[in-house]
Amino acid sequence: MSDITLHYFDIYGRAEVLRTILNYSGTPFTDHRISFEDWGQLKNTGFAEFSQLPVIDIDGHRLSQTQSISRYLCNKLGFGVTDPEESYYVESLCDLFEDIATAFGTLMFTKDMEGINKLFQDKVPQWLRLVETRLERNNHGNGFFVGAHPTRADFHAFVALTEIINKFHPELIDQNAPKLRL
Amino acid sequence: MSDITLHYFDIYGRAEVLRTILNYSGTPFTDHRISFEDWGQLKNTGFAEFSQLPVIDIDGHRLSQTQSISRYLCNKLGFGVTDPEESYYVESLCDLFEDIATAFGTLMFTKDMEGINKLFQDKVPQWLRLVETRLERNNHGNGFFVGAHPTRADFHAFVALTEIINKFHPELIDQNAPKLRL
Repeated sequence: MSDITLHYFDIYGRAEVLRTILNYSGTPFTDHRISFEDWGQLKNTGFAEFSQLPVIDIDGHRLSQTQSISRYLCNKLGFGVTDPEESYYVESLCDLFEDIATAFGTLMFTKDMEGINKLFQDKVPQWLRLVETRLERNNHGNGFFVGAHPTRADFHAFVALTEIINKFHPELIDQNAPKLRL
Repeated sequence: MSDITLHYFDIYGRAEVLRTILNYSGTPFTDHRISFEDWGQLKNTGFAEFSQLPVIDIDGHRLSQTQSISRYLCNKLGFGVTDPEESYYVESLCDLFEDIATAFGTLMFTKDMEGINKLFQDKVPQWLRLVETRLERNNHGNGFFVGAHPTRADFHAFVALTEIINKFHPELIDQNAPKLRL
């Protein structure tokens, strides 16, 4: 992969995990930031196959869907998993982070602060304990989520924990899942 | 995989693709249907790791998250894909069907008929054309979505097309994506 351009808005959002995978692996890429105004015009031109961002150009091919791009990048950059059981543990954790991102995304889009606070109070502690339990399955919680190397579960966890939980309520990590402290 | 029990509500919903994969492959399983009343009691007992259905028991292990279970079953039952490019085309299509299921699921849950009709009018034709274009990438649209055998993209497509589009507006398939006719 020698020619990579990531297209997304000028925010962290759904693309940040892709930027993280590329940066962690030392893979050069063009980080193309699109304004919301420009996206309004671009959206229905066929620029993005599913009319959604992020999309990524890799050596002349344009790929869509955050989860599929993340998996593709990890497979190509040495963070992939082939064993079906290990793959399940990676993927199901990424599904949980997707659920969390979706729950927050909808509320943040509508600036529903009451809903966001309720989510932090009612659901986040439970999610953090789930994630810590998953971490403890492997190497007593002192390494990665699966195996001896990072997988996409680690990248998605890192972004979810830094961009959502640690930014607003870092105390929840200490209180509920200290093994997840960054 | 010799001892399999699928736990879900007594509806098609998110489990139907899992039932379809198991039935298509001729894999025996116990189809455990849970009433909404019983789920209310069961939900917070730790029965389901992420407090969501479906879950599936396979030889003493309980797996969660529909997409991860679907991928695991396909990997174990001979419908898996290992090449990163082929995997991307399978997975990104499944992500689209997940987007479609989520869009309909929310509206159906709140019985928002106006919203459902708007989705059929504004979005479904576009989605159908996208899916048909993907089908036509492979073998001129006369076979499977990727390669020469079914992958989970075909199972998710089959369920989305039969359970959502064909049930309510079969004419949209003929009008927008005749190659997808079942």
